[in-house]
Amino acid sequence: MARSLEIVGERWTLLIIRDAFYGVRRFNDFIAHLNLPRAVLTNRLHSLVEENVLVRTKAASGRDEYTLTSKGESLWPVIRSLLDWGDTYCSDGAPRRLFVHALDNGELNLSGTCAACHQQVDIAETLVTPGPGLEDSEPTPDSITAALLHPRRMLSPFT
Amino acid sequence: MARSLEIVGERWTLLIIRDAFYGVRRFNDFIAHLNLPRAVLTNRLHSLVEENVLVRTKAASGRDEYTLTSKGESLWPVIRSLLDWGDTYCSDGAPRRLFVHALDNGELNLSGTCAACHQQVDIAETLVTPGPGLEDSEPTPDSITAALLHPRRMLSPFT
Repeated sequence: MARSLEIVGERWTLLIIRDAFYGVRRFNDFIAHLNLPRAVLTNRLHSLVEENVLVRTKAASGRDEYTLTSKGESLWPVIRSLLDWGDTYCSDGAPRRLFVHALDNGELNLSGTCAACHQQVDIAETLVTPGPGLEDSEPTPDSITAALLHPRRMLSPFT
Repeated sequence: MARSLEIVGERWTLLIIRDAFYGVRRFNDFIAHLNLPRAVLTNRLHSLVEENVLVRTKAASGRDEYTLTSKGESLWPVIRSLLDWGDTYCSDGAPRRLFVHALDNGELNLSGTCAACHQQVDIAETLVTPGPGLEDSEPTPDSITAALLHPRRMLSPFT
């Protein structure tokens, strides 16, 4: 675990990975949503590419995009359990986001099992939707925060 | 999640919490097992008590002991999924530790379900045992490393 934590044992790193699950891919979108210093983001993205958690590709627009590798996607149980713990102990107990099966709208439990069809659901078949504990956003939220006010498919890019 | 990571989003903090699950309670035992600077441990223990993840009590010996609160114990899915990810990607894929049901020796899956009796097993009914991926320890390991070479009940104190 010490070795894992050399890779992901840092606050911003885990928030960057969470955002990548939500579909954030571009440098400026991470900045807008996480409000972290540009130098910190540059450094963390570099490490995550180095460690094969993210891969950097060139989009048609010419811009760099960062997406999760299979090693990165395997971090979902860590992110999901941290979100759950935060909902229980760091807010009023109501989940800020719900994760539901895109096919039947069944809610997914912590292990990713759908309450409707009882199947184990892939990340790419999962929707992230606002939950009852989600705080009101500012009057003019950034584009990522605004997009996350509606159900959207995990990993799908913001446009 | 940002708020959760203010509490646990740091490498040493998560290793201290993992050790608390293994039963480490005393300052000098954390030092011996984790080999971290004393000032860092003092600081992290203070924060974790402040955040009600650990509670500090006075043992019969007069020494301070740190044990997990229920808020702290709720971090087990985070620790377990990090251990699992580390086994898969940061070692040769073989688990370093196995978690088994004390009653029937059934192995617990990531969600804590026993392979033998199919029940959800409490932390206090779980044994941590050496797995096939555990590296050889040094010729004269510290007392915590040495004790963890044998199955032992989670949360039970080292003597």
